[in-house]
Amino acid sequence: MDGEAFRRDGHRLVEWVAEYLDEVERHPVRSRARPGEVFAALPPAAPEHPEPFEQVLSDLDRIVVPGLTHWQHPSFFAYFPANSSYASILAELVTAGLGVNGFSWVTSPAATELEQVMCEWMRELLGLPGRFSFEQEGGGVIQDSASSSTLVAVVAARERAIAAGAEPSRLVAFASEEAHASVQKAMHVAGFAPGALRAIPTDPSFALDADRLRDALVVARHAGQVPFLTIATSGTTSSLAFDPLDALAELAAEHGMWLHVDAAMAGVAALCPEHRFVLDGVARVDSWATNPHKWMGAQFDCALLYVADRAALTAALSTEPAYLASAEAGRVVDYRNWQIPLGRRFRALKLWFLLRLEGAEAVRAMLRRHVAWASELASWVDADSHLELVERPRLNLVCLRHRDGPHATDALVEAANATGRALFTRTVLGGVPTLRFCVGARTTERRHVEAGFALLARLAAEGAGRRAVGARGRPGEAAPHGTGVGKIGGCERPGGVETGDQGREA
Amino acid sequence: MDGEAFRRDGHRLVEWVAEYLDEVERHPVRSRARPGEVFAALPPAAPEHPEPFEQVLSDLDRIVVPGLTHWQHPSFFAYFPANSSYASILAELVTAGLGVNGFSWVTSPAATELEQVMCEWMRELLGLPGRFSFEQEGGGVIQDSASSSTLVAVVAARERAIAAGAEPSRLVAFASEEAHASVQKAMHVAGFAPGALRAIPTDPSFALDADRLRDALVVARHAGQVPFLTIATSGTTSSLAFDPLDALAELAAEHGMWLHVDAAMAGVAALCPEHRFVLDGVARVDSWATNPHKWMGAQFDCALLYVADRAALTAALSTEPAYLASAEAGRVVDYRNWQIPLGRRFRALKLWFLLRLEGAEAVRAMLRRHVAWASELASWVDADSHLELVERPRLNLVCLRHRDGPHATDALVEAANATGRALFTRTVLGGVPTLRFCVGARTTERRHVEAGFALLARLAAEGAGRRAVGARGRPGEAAPHGTGVGKIGGCERPGGVETGDQGREA
Repeated sequence: MDGEAFRRDGHRLVEWVAEYLDEVERHPVRSRARPGEVFAALPPAAPEHPEPFEQVLSDLDRIVVPGLTHWQHPSFFAYFPANSSYASILAELVTAGLGVNGFSWVTSPAATELEQVMCEWMRELLGLPGRFSFEQEGGGVIQDSASSSTLVAVVAARERAIAAGAEPSRLVAFASEEAHASVQKAMHVAGFAPGALRAIPTDPSFALDADRLRDALVVARHAGQVPFLTIATSGTTSSLAFDPLDALAELAAEHGMWLHVDAAMAGVAALCPEHRFVLDGVARVDSWATNPHKWMGAQFDCALLYVADRAALTAALSTEPAYLASAEAGRVVDYRNWQIPLGRRFRALKLWFLLRLEGAEAVRAMLRRHVAWASELASWVDADSHLELVERPRLNLVCLRHRDGPHATDALVEAANATGRALFTRTVLGGVPTLRFCVGARTTERRHVEAGFALLARLAAEGAGRRAVGARGRPGEAAPHGTGVGKIGGCERPGGVETGDQGREA
Repeated sequence: MDGEAFRRDGHRLVEWVAEYLDEVERHPVRSRARPGEVFAALPPAAPEHPEPFEQVLSDLDRIVVPGLTHWQHPSFFAYFPANSSYASILAELVTAGLGVNGFSWVTSPAATELEQVMCEWMRELLGLPGRFSFEQEGGGVIQDSASSSTLVAVVAARERAIAAGAEPSRLVAFASEEAHASVQKAMHVAGFAPGALRAIPTDPSFALDADRLRDALVVARHAGQVPFLTIATSGTTSSLAFDPLDALAELAAEHGMWLHVDAAMAGVAALCPEHRFVLDGVARVDSWATNPHKWMGAQFDCALLYVADRAALTAALSTEPAYLASAEAGRVVDYRNWQIPLGRRFRALKLWFLLRLEGAEAVRAMLRRHVAWASELASWVDADSHLELVERPRLNLVCLRHRDGPHATDALVEAANATGRALFTRTVLGGVPTLRFCVGARTTERRHVEAGFALLARLAAEGAGRRAVGARGRPGEAAPHGTGVGKIGGCERPGGVETGDQGREA
């Protein structure tokens, strides 16, 4: 493939991507592919000789697209969003075209310094403290994910503690019971035994209970252990609970612990002054992470990690073999020493394109729309006779349940997702199944939130009706998993709702 | 930015990328940016409102491009290549446009299953054993980098050993003195004390000396330690040495160690049957990694990791919180459990596009060109009166020195790189500075290798001449670092060489 073919096929793919995004709503949100279906549709061996571009494009439409769960769909309300923007997609094309690997400053100074500038821009926009700035002792870096940011923080905290004389086997870390699974995984990868991470119970709002942490610290100290790290969450996965950073910072200072904050989705809300409560207490934390690739419109992967003491980070992660030596080392930022892997993509471009081509105000406007709709949604749920709120909504997340109990909630999630018209995530809060309705796609409009609610309300009412019938006549029908999914999946589209699923779902 | 603007600006960027690659040769290979220069050229704060696309494009040309080290330059002979192909750049546009996050099968079945198929295609093309296939007990996965593949192997091996009853503090791992720095970093991240990784001396070819490993194992056992892992290298960074996998597999079997192989660049040479020696002994290893993003033309990041026992991998890396549960779990591959982070890009597309739009034979042809030119290059070096080979060339890497000794070699590397006409890496082999000349860019033609050699030969002769003068009259001038760089950087272009550096180097 030469430059001429690249131009010709590149233009076609620009149109293809534009069309995909124009029409993403036509697809069922969750793929209907069965396990093994895509695998079986592909030939068992690679071609020896070039195939026509048309053939690849056709297979993309025929085999790949129906096998996707459409994260950019306006009715994708599952997990956390991975929303993207046209601007950041363009930046990814540039990143790919340039093909540089900025693991050291010298291997592309602009890749490093643009990333530093983007970290400073974002720090200012978010209202983060000056101690996270390169102008002071801190700095920022773009990681691939919040999980990696957490792992980096764990390793940096561990090494700081060991350098201070702690016995590695005595180190213990703390996080709330609602912390993301990646916290446990990071501790595990970093070599800690399961018992080295203490799960602290939460208060009724599902935030870490600082009093319980205080107690746990006393117990740990009495057992001869060395508390070295607390990982707080600003916006938990299951319910967007906010751990009390001020109280945790007190305890961290008292015990010499590193305090890392995982604000993966909610952190970007600080772009809006009225949502800046998400930063309460941030002035005293050691590291703080948020993912512009979740809710801000930067393409995955774009995860920001800020540290107050960059020397602690690089002390923990630096390698300086002869073949990576450079005359500028020590005078510049070598980002390989801020992360786990060596190689790194030129990720800063997508933040740069996003902020310059959209402007910060457009991002704020999107966040505000989502928060406003989530608030409206919560009021509809609250007024529904079959649904109930689990929590007052926080930012863009609404947690709800079927009033008929856990089995009804489970059945509701499955039935709703099976329609292909919207996608929700089931979680468990306080031991009880819960449906998460997270409003965060760039393409989402108010009508999609309305339709998503209408879908849930109708299915909840039907499910309740069937359960009532079942309770009288056919007890077996109330089984929680899969019951009625086929029937519900085949029901009429709700009136006035235009999400549609009659499209290219081949 | 809307779909219409995306189309318009996307088409312009396709042309921009095509033009960048058409003319990449016009840039100095290594950026001439000074530390802080790019940082200072960018405004201190993000714009509140959209800026014109023209402005961003202009800044890309004016600020970013001169700040890049051009990895796609045909005279980029440094590090390992990160070569790319037009096909894989197109795939990255699609990956960005789709914006799916395939961390679980259910979050995009096609992302998972296309990746599985690509691993099978590559396994067949490379001639890897059936035990790395999903049809048996193994499988493949695309990581971001070989460093991450190594870390994954370290964690899997560690957990297998612990599950078998080993005391974590007694675990010790082995790698050669020439193993990549990421091996030490992976052990460090995984929580091992520095002493837990034993660096085994190499034989005269810089390959791990299996007899020395055997001795080290005896010593470790006598000290009550538990050898759990050997990390072999197939193609070391400094000289492309190949550790003896057969002998290592014997020792691994004897001691119950996991045997991981880092074949980051050299592994893809197995695409050519005549280079399949790079796989000697692979039939008995536990895991094996190579990076199509280095020498095969897949865009970074695309690092393949194969394991013989996928259950050992997922046992070490799985997390199954409620919010990630799916009905298909256990019946499908959930790639989040094969890697360190949670989130993942749809990386399989670039292998698919590359192999379909180029065909395997075109990739082999590129590898063969590079190997043939490296072989020619070695003969020129061998015949030169100022340069000498450190080793017979292996595949696409030639290691050479100045015959006048270490200082002359150091000065040669610096002087050559300062010209901007080519880029080489300095390493240290057997304690002596060495220049690595690695032929691996897609854009490289024979004339670039010739020009690179001519540059080195001329600078070596000039340096030797100046040192001879200096030895007689001005002893200070022979100082190793930076001497004469200014003068050499300003010298005439060699006759008939068309690399050029008069372009847009603003």
